Amino acid sequence: MQRRSSKLLSALAGAGLTLAAAGAWSQSTLEQVMKERGLTQKDVLAAAKTYVPTGKRDEYIVVSSGGQSGQLIVYGIPSMRILKVVAVFTPEPWQGYGFDDESKAILAQGKIRGKEIRYGDTHHPAFSETNGEYDGRYVFINDKANPRIAVVDLHDFETKQIVVNPFFKSSHGGAFVTPNTEYIMDASQYASPVSNDYVPLEQFNEKYRGGLTYWAFDKEKGRIVPERSFTFEFGPYSQDLSDAGKGPSYGWGFTNSFCSERYVGGIEKGRPPFEAGCSSKDTDFLHVTNWKKAEELVKAGKVGKVNGAYYIPMKQAVAEGLLYLIPEPKSPHGVDVTPDGSRIIVSGKLDSHAWVYSWEKIQQAIKNRKFEGKDPYGVPIIALEDALDKSVNVGLGPLHTQFDSRKCVAYTSIYVDSMITKWDYCTGKVLDQLPIHYNVGHLMAMEGDTVHPDGKYLVALNKLSIDRFNPIGPLHPQNHQLIDISGDKMELLYDMPIGMGEPHYAAAIRADKLKPAVRYRSGWNSREDKRSPWKTRAGREKVERSCDANGKCTVHVYGTTIRSHIVPEIIEVTEGDTVSLHFTNLERAEDETHGFALYGQNVQLSIEPGKTASTTFVAEQPGVYPYYCTEFCSALHLEMQGYLLVKPKGYKVKAGEMVEGTHYTEADYQKQVKTNLETQKVIDQVVAFITSHNYKDFPVVADLVEDATDQLGFAKEARKKAEEAAARGDWNKAMLWANQWWQYQVKAADLGLRAKTYLEEHGARKIN
Amino acid sequence: MQRRSSKLLSALAGAGLTLAAAGAWSQSTLEQVMKERGLTQKDVLAAAKTYVPTGKRDEYIVVSSGGQSGQLIVYGIPSMRILKVVAVFTPEPWQGYGFDDESKAILAQGKIRGKEIRYGDTHHPAFSETNGEYDGRYVFINDKANPRIAVVDLHDFETKQIVVNPFFKSSHGGAFVTPNTEYIMDASQYASPVSNDYVPLEQFNEKYRGGLTYWAFDKEKGRIVPERSFTFEFGPYSQDLSDAGKGPSYGWGFTNSFCSERYVGGIEKGRPPFEAGCSSKDTDFLHVTNWKKAEELVKAGKVGKVNGAYYIPMKQAVAEGLLYLIPEPKSPHGVDVTPDGSRIIVSGKLDSHAWVYSWEKIQQAIKNRKFEGKDPYGVPIIALEDALDKSVNVGLGPLHTQFDSRKCVAYTSIYVDSMITKWDYCTGKVLDQLPIHYNVGHLMAMEGDTVHPDGKYLVALNKLSIDRFNPIGPLHPQNHQLIDISGDKMELLYDMPIGMGEPHYAAAIRADKLKPAVRYRSGWNSREDKRSPWKTRAGREKVERSCDANGKCTVHVYGTTIRSHIVPEIIEVTEGDTVSLHFTNLERAEDETHGFALYGQNVQLSIEPGKTASTTFVAEQPGVYPYYCTEFCSALHLEMQGYLLVKPKGYKVKAGEMVEGTHYTEADYQKQVKTNLETQKVIDQVVAFITSHNYKDFPVVADLVEDATDQLGFAKEARKKAEEAAARGDWNKAMLWANQWWQYQVKAADLGLRAKTYLEEHGARKIN
Repeated sequence: MQRRSSKLLSALAGAGLTLAAAGAWSQSTLEQVMKERGLTQKDVLAAAKTYVPTGKRDEYIVVSSGGQSGQLIVYGIPSMRILKVVAVFTPEPWQGYGFDDESKAILAQGKIRGKEIRYGDTHHPAFSETNGEYDGRYVFINDKANPRIAVVDLHDFETKQIVVNPFFKSSHGGAFVTPNTEYIMDASQYASPVSNDYVPLEQFNEKYRGGLTYWAFDKEKGRIVPERSFTFEFGPYSQDLSDAGKGPSYGWGFTNSFCSERYVGGIEKGRPPFEAGCSSKDTDFLHVTNWKKAEELVKAGKVGKVNGAYYIPMKQAVAEGLLYLIPEPKSPHGVDVTPDGSRIIVSGKLDSHAWVYSWEKIQQAIKNRKFEGKDPYGVPIIALEDALDKSVNVGLGPLHTQFDSRKCVAYTSIYVDSMITKWDYCTGKVLDQLPIHYNVGHLMAMEGDTVHPDGKYLVALNKLSIDRFNPIGPLHPQNHQLIDISGDKMELLYDMPIGMGEPHYAAAIRADKLKPAVRYRSGWNSREDKRSPWKTRAGREKVERSCDANGKCTVHVYGTTIRSHIVPEIIEVTEGDTVSLHFTNLERAEDETHGFALYGQNVQLSIEPGKTASTTFVAEQPGVYPYYCTEFCSALHLEMQGYLLVKPKGYKVKAGEMVEGTHYTEADYQKQVKTNLETQKVIDQVVAFITSHNYKDFPVVADLVEDATDQLGFAKEARKKAEEAAARGDWNKAMLWANQWWQYQVKAADLGLRAKTYLEEHGARKIN
Repeated sequence: MQRRSSKLLSALAGAGLTLAAAGAWSQSTLEQVMKERGLTQKDVLAAAKTYVPTGKRDEYIVVSSGGQSGQLIVYGIPSMRILKVVAVFTPEPWQGYGFDDESKAILAQGKIRGKEIRYGDTHHPAFSETNGEYDGRYVFINDKANPRIAVVDLHDFETKQIVVNPFFKSSHGGAFVTPNTEYIMDASQYASPVSNDYVPLEQFNEKYRGGLTYWAFDKEKGRIVPERSFTFEFGPYSQDLSDAGKGPSYGWGFTNSFCSERYVGGIEKGRPPFEAGCSSKDTDFLHVTNWKKAEELVKAGKVGKVNGAYYIPMKQAVAEGLLYLIPEPKSPHGVDVTPDGSRIIVSGKLDSHAWVYSWEKIQQAIKNRKFEGKDPYGVPIIALEDALDKSVNVGLGPLHTQFDSRKCVAYTSIYVDSMITKWDYCTGKVLDQLPIHYNVGHLMAMEGDTVHPDGKYLVALNKLSIDRFNPIGPLHPQNHQLIDISGDKMELLYDMPIGMGEPHYAAAIRADKLKPAVRYRSGWNSREDKRSPWKTRAGREKVERSCDANGKCTVHVYGTTIRSHIVPEIIEVTEGDTVSLHFTNLERAEDETHGFALYGQNVQLSIEPGKTASTTFVAEQPGVYPYYCTEFCSALHLEMQGYLLVKPKGYKVKAGEMVEGTHYTEADYQKQVKTNLETQKVIDQVVAFITSHNYKDFPVVADLVEDATDQLGFAKEARKKAEEAAARGDWNKAMLWANQWWQYQVKAADLGLRAKTYLEEHGARKIN
């Protein structure tokens, strides 16, 4: 039978040359397509405004909460394409999250009362800020169900830390950052005892409490510092959202609430339900807190600790002038500080108005100690008329407000009316209204929470999609609608289904502010951001087994991955051993991630270039456990495999040699060498093409060339081994190493062809 | 302070009337947009071909494997928007998968050697077929890492069953169905002992085995029947993909392989790696199996059992004429039967040709018992020239072939060359080539695996995206590229990033073939497809606590959820109790799913309309545990809450009354009643608008009206309670029930406004 590699060879020689001619423009016209697909002119315009051609970039990057998925969803605007689901509170095997030892340590930080928590209910992401602008470094996200905050580093879009609130049993008013990320605000939702004790609901008014935590953040280390963080005690109202003051209101925070009725339901006993009792009063309370002054008290040692953390009782907060209440429309959702920090906008979901508060008036009332009374806990209440600038009729069930780049222009989501209202908070005029589908929750403007929102686009995070998409059963996707706000009238551009949890809030940053890494430094523990003690270099792979005095043994495997083999390929352990596998990905090439899955042991690693990932398990049962790479990394990806062999306890190894399944002759070897030498000639031609062009002007190509050079280096090593084996007449080894040499050539050719095509497609110039 | 509800009222009266005017067409032209966004005419055409306007439908629904995420990804074509990630092998909290008792039972079916497995590596989804056509009923998907097959029902897009392969330690060649879904093919990948025993690799050739399972499927019950399934023993080659014969080749199956060298690596000991030893021979083996005849043998009781399942040893298979080998290009990926069943196409990833085998020639060789020899296990080998029709040079590293609606036209993915080759398998001519980015794995045509592929579109499932999208760190998304194949030349339409695991294969069905449910029958266990024993009707909620002889107590809560309260709202148990919560969603309205999250207990349910979901845990520690709905279901969603109170063991209940946080007067009650009566007048106006139009012609609106009628019914009940409380002078209760009456009115108004807007937007006619 004829060897096929010669055919490959001839194909290699000709490849790439004819491609430029392919993909010619068809005769079909736009009008035909519109007619066939029933598109209006408006549809085509929306399509043109959102389409991002291959290889081009989106303008904004969104981090969206994933609701009960516990994750963050990253997508681009205007294309609305999902780039990554970042694992935060829920194990996610494809990222190795909750499967490798390094990320298990992050999840372990989030234990509640000693219990491992395997999900979250993420609500409100926030970007880190410097001088009130997103600085592109970190994202914070809260878990409502199990009150926690996580830190995601935008260097690699990985979760680095989870902190558990020491006082709350639920949280909603997080994450919101102060203008220099001094603190991350995190307000509780459902009032609960501050301790973990059982407290009967009959003692609700006395013993149940809300609260607001200011989590201190160390921007250099990229970690929350619980030791410097502090929490305000609040009355047993249900705190909802928060926002930090800025400009004139810098140093202050705002947190709204619902159920200031302090109602406890019990419909099963004939009491009206929570929803009735928690929405009976006309108003709830906006909490105004002075974090700057509180910080000084903490630093001065004037704040005591409860549950091991700084806790400011209402009494102290009142005495020190740190806490005030202002009536706000009942059952509000968003509390939104205007970009200039001069006003605070709140709307109640059962009202039809946006209420605009004046920071100047609030300050004045505080200064003059002008209060209309106190709440049952002694907190002074500023009268509505002493705080309100105006209220504007925006529609039924206003929920959340975002801001335009144009002065005084705001957008409010209208839940019951299913629309967006554009209005002017300086003049109080409604400017435009746009129906959405259906029942919008939060709104998101570009750089919307900064001191300089970008305008351009708005996203309506709708709560129901009902009939918007192809039906896929009773559980529907959510719907994010992209809206063009560049003109006077809002225009709906795109409906984006989200079928992976219910996002609540999202934040959009200018894409050019992000500078994520392509690879890790070699041997990197990405979760701790430092060199891993288990890092392994090529050729230094090893297996170490040690036993303690009780005969409990641990096997550490220091391994590596590279296209397309795992070192070691065979691991032998004994039943009962604790096995710790540590793999370092030796690749430097962009996107050359390797995975590592092992049969029946819940082992699945994602090892990006440079990363060292570990996994530890007990080999409980004897047997044969195949493992392999889970990322299709090269043409030989399926052959990137190995076996873990677990020997029964006390098993006596019998003498035995590996029996070869196939034998090769000198002729086989010589034929392979001939192929390789011919292949090298073709590779040289491709290299000549590349180096005769200005390839260094194309970073992608320069990277490909560097990688190809690596591969050819490996080919040289394999060639050496082949020639050594041939010299001693070991034709099996000679043939196989010669084949391995060829495999590296194929990898180099793959890269070379990709580089050549790229140069052709991007108009590279011939330089010599 | 003025009550705001009157403002709401006036807004309600005016709402919806001005909306039709909003969203007017702007003056911005397509040319301007093209210039601003740097779009070519080709880009705009691609945008127009893929854009799906709000409320419109996609033509095809894709189920894509999710790789190491363990899930299925459902998206639409041509919009490439993700509709749902279906949880299959990995717990997924937003769907309650692995969190409710019903789905935990499904995951428990997938245990490996008694161990709970918390992820999968899904590779190849397949739709159920009738007469070789997708019938839109089920999807099957394999787990490569832990050899399993799952069944997903397209009635609700939920996973219903997981079966574990009784012989394999990895699988790759599944799922592929026979033309009437008689069987689901599932071939092993890495050879392993058939038992769970430890077997040294020195015994690889004798004791390690591959195999191919034909899983029997009961289409009426929608479940795999392990008792009727059977497995072929194969040699220790690495089986790869499979496909079932059709038409003339009906009754047969085809499974390819790599590493027929039977090479065992060991680079750590100086042996050449697997990748070298497994790609040294020019050819591997295509396995040809006769499942129809094997089925007869099984039925006739002529097949024995191993590991409790039918197992056909190679010796028996050879003796009965069930198994043949044919040389195929080395390291192939896809084995693809042409729609007419006359040919089988295989390509090796290290070759540059697609090899077209003739079923007629193969049949003839079998009939004539014309073999070139036997493999080491006695399996007859049909010579290449006795099976091959032709081989066609399609490019470097061909991987997988799909078919057009046009006769003889095929598309092959070319991995190394990063392109798609369109060619004619009857004439052997290459028709077109299109570069893709980068390194394409599988290809997917519309209805591509049926006897009548649809043409129109092709999706390239690319393995690397490198520079295609905005950078988001070292871990890149995959890239699915949509290609227009309606013309002579292929045209690239769209790049879709997949940032949630690496899809391997996908399948696309005509959207109009799917008829998923909108709701479940009341009290439904969706995983078992039957009425739940824990179903609860409105008003029948109850809590039952029982203790066994050892004092171990179990609390069963029969609860319900409805906009916007959970019944019961307070649950009291004692430390150490096993708590079983069962919630039935009383909603019938489309998309009115409720969630249920409980602090610190890993409880997160997704309860779609009609569904009953259960969760069981031990209340280990005393304390207060808030719970709430995790789907934003109405304006009062945040108030849809409750408390689980866990009393310490031996806690003595002290006498105590609930202390009201707020007191209401008769005046409060009267004011609320006045508001409600005015609100009713406005609702009546909306109702009049709707009923004066042909709303029954719009199913979405008819559903909304039905739901609104329900809400008004609830309002009437609350009104009755309010009036009863008022009659006995209980003003607190009177006021709260009056407020609840109003809450139901708001819910009805929400629905009414949605219906009204819909009618206005869809040109409803006035009928009286």
